[in-house]
Amino acid sequence: MAGKKVLIVYAHQEPRSFNGSLKKVAVDELSKQGCTVTVSDLYAMDFEPRATRKDIIGALSNPEFFNYGVEAYEACKKRSLTSDIIDEQKKVQEADLVIFQFPLYWFSVPAILKGWMDRVLCQGFAFDIPGFYDSGFLKDKFALLSVTTGGTAEMYTKTGVSGHFKYFLWPLQHGALHFCGFKVLAPQISFAPEFASEEERKRMVASWAQRLKTIWKEEPIHCTPPWYFGE
Amino acid sequence: MAGKKVLIVYAHQEPRSFNGSLKKVAVDELSKQGCTVTVSDLYAMDFEPRATRKDIIGALSNPEFFNYGVEAYEACKKRSLTSDIIDEQKKVQEADLVIFQFPLYWFSVPAILKGWMDRVLCQGFAFDIPGFYDSGFLKDKFALLSVTTGGTAEMYTKTGVSGHFKYFLWPLQHGALHFCGFKVLAPQISFAPEFASEEERKRMVASWAQRLKTIWKEEPIHCTPPWYFGE
Repeated sequence: MAGKKVLIVYAHQEPRSFNGSLKKVAVDELSKQGCTVTVSDLYAMDFEPRATRKDIIGALSNPEFFNYGVEAYEACKKRSLTSDIIDEQKKVQEADLVIFQFPLYWFSVPAILKGWMDRVLCQGFAFDIPGFYDSGFLKDKFALLSVTTGGTAEMYTKTGVSGHFKYFLWPLQHGALHFCGFKVLAPQISFAPEFASEEERKRMVASWAQRLKTIWKEEPIHCTPPWYFGE
Repeated sequence: MAGKKVLIVYAHQEPRSFNGSLKKVAVDELSKQGCTVTVSDLYAMDFEPRATRKDIIGALSNPEFFNYGVEAYEACKKRSLTSDIIDEQKKVQEADLVIFQFPLYWFSVPAILKGWMDRVLCQGFAFDIPGFYDSGFLKDKFALLSVTTGGTAEMYTKTGVSGHFKYFLWPLQHGALHFCGFKVLAPQISFAPEFASEEERKRMVASWAQRLKTIWKEEPIHCTPPWYFGE
């Protein structure tokens, strides 16, 4: 929708990968709609995933006992977080929709993207205590996970060896995104592109582009246990 | 048990933290039993979490299109993975039990530990296709997650705001550890040490030490959906 702002947090090493195609088609489709699209290409940025003392500029509030959460919270309030974190927070702050584009690594995000979540979504910026879940600070924004898997759709069913795909979404969608207040849109899951034919891969990319045409009309999922695990 | 080998993969920045105390008491108790205990102190090692081309020494099998999983698999077979990965794989190979000691970050492991999983547990070392879940390559080993949380035990119940604590264990215990064949022991969860009194914290540390006295007699959990989500 014209005027909307989208941030794509993208975690793949190879521009010509299937993940790269999904990212590209999203940039193209959303730009065509008149959206402003920003991409954080984490590997290209060599994004730092480790949460360390280096994230705080200047003196620590307690140098004798390093508590990352406490120090990041204090630094956020004093505007003394390191610049790569502040840059990403600005992008999130401006976005109406944040899309995470990544291949599933161990039923979760790759470490480089986990580090983005650990460092960027800090207390004081994304939430406070109180001020989480439905009152999280990012509650006026939408978030969407666009995931590619190694395993096939059959493996990710309730009776499949890897369990229902919704099971692995819980920590990411509920524990991270919903905690920060994001309204979570249904995930886009592209199953096993490596085992798919060229034609099937093209169909998966096209179906993502097609979905994005009406993305602004979508209702968020009801991000509570019944959606993930059934009643 | 005398003669057993234990690897503790430890992810906390502050040696005097509660996580540090849990790590220390585990080293002490297991050493007292006559076990050989090795600690991978990830922050102290400045462990690299990003999965990149640098993990492969020498030529890539396909330099035109970088596929991390494929390249790491080939490099594992040719013994051309970078030395920090090989060092960790040796420690895992020698261990009878791997304990992961970490604070919960976004319902999961901190990025530095996620990177350890992403890079160390590669195809060819920890599993193959076929050769996963009960036939994963690490099937003669035990694994145990020792986790500290920010939220209280009440928050991590089926009707609590954060859902049952077992929900967030699924990707870690099933999707990663069980996938590699590990027999998974029940997690050790220390809830909200930051909000606990000094006495309660001491009790939590002591209860971990107590459990470790008979750890070698424990039966693994039945790592399938009913354990996590009920029938």
